[in-house]
Amino acid sequence: MIRKPLLVVNFKAYPTSHGQKALEMAKAAFHVSNQVETEIILVPPHTEIYRISQVYSQTYGQPPDISGQGAYTGRVSLEMIVSAGAKGVLINHSEKKIPYNMLVQMISNAKRYGLKTIVCAETPVEAKAIALAEPDYIAIEPPELIGTGIPVSKAKPEIITQSIDAVSKINPSIPVLAGAGITNGDDAYTAIQLGAAGVLVASAVMKHKEPQSKLNELATALSSSWAKKTPIQ
Amino acid sequence: MIRKPLLVVNFKAYPTSHGQKALEMAKAAFHVSNQVETEIILVPPHTEIYRISQVYSQTYGQPPDISGQGAYTGRVSLEMIVSAGAKGVLINHSEKKIPYNMLVQMISNAKRYGLKTIVCAETPVEAKAIALAEPDYIAIEPPELIGTGIPVSKAKPEIITQSIDAVSKINPSIPVLAGAGITNGDDAYTAIQLGAAGVLVASAVMKHKEPQSKLNELATALSSSWAKKTPIQ
Amino acid sequence: MIRKPLLVVNFKAYPTSHGQKALEMAKAAFHVSNQVETEIILVPPHTEIYRISQVYSQTYGQPPDISGQGAYTGRVSLEMIVSAGAKGVLINHSEKKIPYNMLVQMISNAKRYGLKTIVCAETPVEAKAIALAEPDYIAIEPPELIGTGIPVSKAKPEIITQSIDAVSKINPSIPVLAGAGITNGDDAYTAIQLGAAGVLVASAVMKHKEPQSKLNELATALSSSWAKKTPIQ
Amino acid sequence: MIRKPLLVVNFKAYPTSHGQKALEMAKAAFHVSNQVETEIILVPPHTEIYRISQVYSQTYGQPPDISGQGAYTGRVSLEMIVSAGAKGVLINHSEKKIPYNMLVQMISNAKRYGLKTIVCAETPVEAKAIALAEPDYIAIEPPELIGTGIPVSKAKPEIITQSIDAVSKINPSIPVLAGAGITNGDDAYTAIQLGAAGVLVASAVMKHKEPQSKLNELATALSSSWAKKTPIQ
Repeated sequence: MIRKPLLVVNFKAYPTSHGQKALEMAKAAFHVSNQVETEIILVPPHTEIYRISQVYSQTYGQPPDISGQGAYTGRVSLEMIVSAGAKGVLINHSEKKIPYNMLVQMISNAKRYGLKTIVCAETPVEAKAIALAEPDYIAIEPPELIGTGIPVSKAKPEIITQSIDAVSKINPSIPVLAGAGITNGDDAYTAIQLGAAGVLVASAVMKHKEPQSKLNELATALSSSWAKKTPIQ
Repeated sequence: MIRKPLLVVNFKAYPTSHGQKALEMAKAAFHVSNQVETEIILVPPHTEIYRISQVYSQTYGQPPDISGQGAYTGRVSLEMIVSAGAKGVLINHSEKKIPYNMLVQMISNAKRYGLKTIVCAETPVEAKAIALAEPDYIAIEPPELIGTGIPVSKAKPEIITQSIDAVSKINPSIPVLAGAGITNGDDAYTAIQLGAAGVLVASAVMKHKEPQSKLNELATALSSSWAKKTPIQ
Repeated sequence: MIRKPLLVVNFKAYPTSHGQKALEMAKAAFHVSNQVETEIILVPPHTEIYRISQVYSQTYGQPPDISGQGAYTGRVSLEMIVSAGAKGVLINHSEKKIPYNMLVQMISNAKRYGLKTIVCAETPVEAKAIALAEPDYIAIEPPELIGTGIPVSKAKPEIITQSIDAVSKINPSIPVLAGAGITNGDDAYTAIQLGAAGVLVASAVMKHKEPQSKLNELATALSSSWAKKTPIQ
Repeated sequence: MIRKPLLVVNFKAYPTSHGQKALEMAKAAFHVSNQVETEIILVPPHTEIYRISQVYSQTYGQPPDISGQGAYTGRVSLEMIVSAGAKGVLINHSEKKIPYNMLVQMISNAKRYGLKTIVCAETPVEAKAIALAEPDYIAIEPPELIGTGIPVSKAKPEIITQSIDAVSKINPSIPVLAGAGITNGDDAYTAIQLGAAGVLVASAVMKHKEPQSKLNELATALSSSWAKKTPIQ
């Protein structure tokens, strides 16, 4: 059972995802996670894993290519992500979906390297199928809401609850995160109340003028919702 | 006109392309290039550009994705490669070929960012077409010889000379490098005598037990062949 | 419950997959299926669906592209496959794997159009995940055996039995076919005895000098094994 | 030198691209091309090549896959397009761009099979590079105008004239077609006056309520503009 809610920040390939802006995000995450009872996970692009992981411990890699190691130019293997210092990896995102059999293999390889896995799903049935492959986390993201600012926790709360149900039928110990359209503290608060273990965000933070204050808002809402939900534990 | 021959080392995604092995390669390149009149360019994978460029100046990026910046997960933009510290970029490799119009756009963007471009071609006619797009270097690599240890400079010397001719009809100031199957000093020596400005290697160095001695062998042969070829300059 | 074993022939993109050779295959299938108690399903390439379905009823389409209908050039939609006269579609083949969420969508669309679905899986866990999406058939094919002539029914019989077990835990009414390396009547016979409802073949028939006699051999073995297995029904 | 202007209709994957609607288009093209001095070329999807080519002679294939013949499932080879009855092939469309070296190979293979090639380009420099590979026709289509109804012949006439110049520097005998946003007779008329040998359309015809009258409008305008342009020939 996880102790704190999760706030996963996917940097994607936004102009703020690399260089100085990316480093500032890492510092902000460091600051916020020291003050709020929320675990912040940063997911910078491949070129920044090394640099960010030097200053922020909970750095995960964006999805590697499925080709693996060998004579491949311009591709990134899971092993490179490990070497660069990542603690985990975000895979099967709707912007880099992979076939199921390769997903199973990648989760298995990640475990062998001691990497945590956050696996994205778009629907309850996909979440259920992914649960069979035993990842560390499943993030449910209806792709039609990604980047819209329409939060899944309000527009389609049943997607979250149905996904949690579907996953728990296979393996109740896999925490489910909610993504897509999460924009503010309210959205994050609601996600936890619906049963999610955290949220996955991208544009809400990466395209915000003051990313640190947005991080703080989301982390605080998650922590506060979590406290209300599990008062006895 | 370039002053020294070029030795371009494509790390690909070999097990030696990342982590400690990659750093050792950078140190070896630093050492050899300080002693031999050959310019060594290292092309590590995306995750290693930052780390390698900290210790070795002539670090180029492997090909980025063509999607550019934005809401893309698990892709690498040209801008990330710049941010990570690369001085140039190797593109259109046979393991990551891109359509011609995107190649033109990428060369143009690279120039805007001050990045050098090495563009791979497989045939003289492709080399000619690429010359129209004005890259900094063109590397001719018959894909059927890549990784074979059968050097293009011996098996198909006419591919090199025809490519140099084709390129020079469009723009005689673009240096042409020879790749594919270059394994030892002899192969490298011959390439220069055929008119190449250097060589592009991968497995010969990356899969060698003593990469530094292989680097030294190739760099020395290039420099020696270069000296014989242009005695007056 | 199916009444007869299935022999599914994937034409792939072999030189014999189109034109006169493809038509001859259809005529051979017509002839054999009239004489043997085996259901033969032909899976020609997209360009041949119309022509083959005119002379052979049980014609299925090879996998369409996932883009659907719209402004796409050089792609094939499920709707085109329906229009061309197919009765079903073979999808998720290891040579055209698709992400799980798209597989779910494609099965659902196929049902809406009255198309049967044969969905390939590489491992028992993939077969189990696919069973959640309720296809008409699941074909288990370890990709390392495809085209080798080493039959899955002999080299890895446990893959077949484990897949049948895994599928039946989710939905026991989905028949499982065995593929990869099935070369002769013996291999086909064994597959049925292991619990398979039929076999999926490609090179064994398409690259054979006398495809009709090979079809006859396989169909006869399937029918004979089926009769031994279910004497009372 | 071509004798008549060309009207190339790319069916894409529109709902009207297959089945009864596609057949009606073929009949309309047959009717119009018998009455107007314009050569109409139809480019249906892969599944419809056979059926359309049975009733309309000038049927070309949409771009095949680059994998060629062999153990590929769900892909279409150039050989299949030939077998299905196509007289030519439309390749390198912005919706299915291929690397330059593969384009050269595909043009060469098409010639061997007696297939005509229409190769798309997005910019004058791409058109020039393609001219080096000696296709039968080059179609210039700025992708930002495709499907917009903003005709290239009005919005960016210089793209057409510069492309014609660029191509003629390499090989003046390659006719250049204009595409993207061509919606009505005026647009088509202007394209010819700018020096184009015809136009490439898709949505204007395929999404029109009365495709035959639209075909007639475009073909008539092309023929009339052609007559004004070359009165003596």
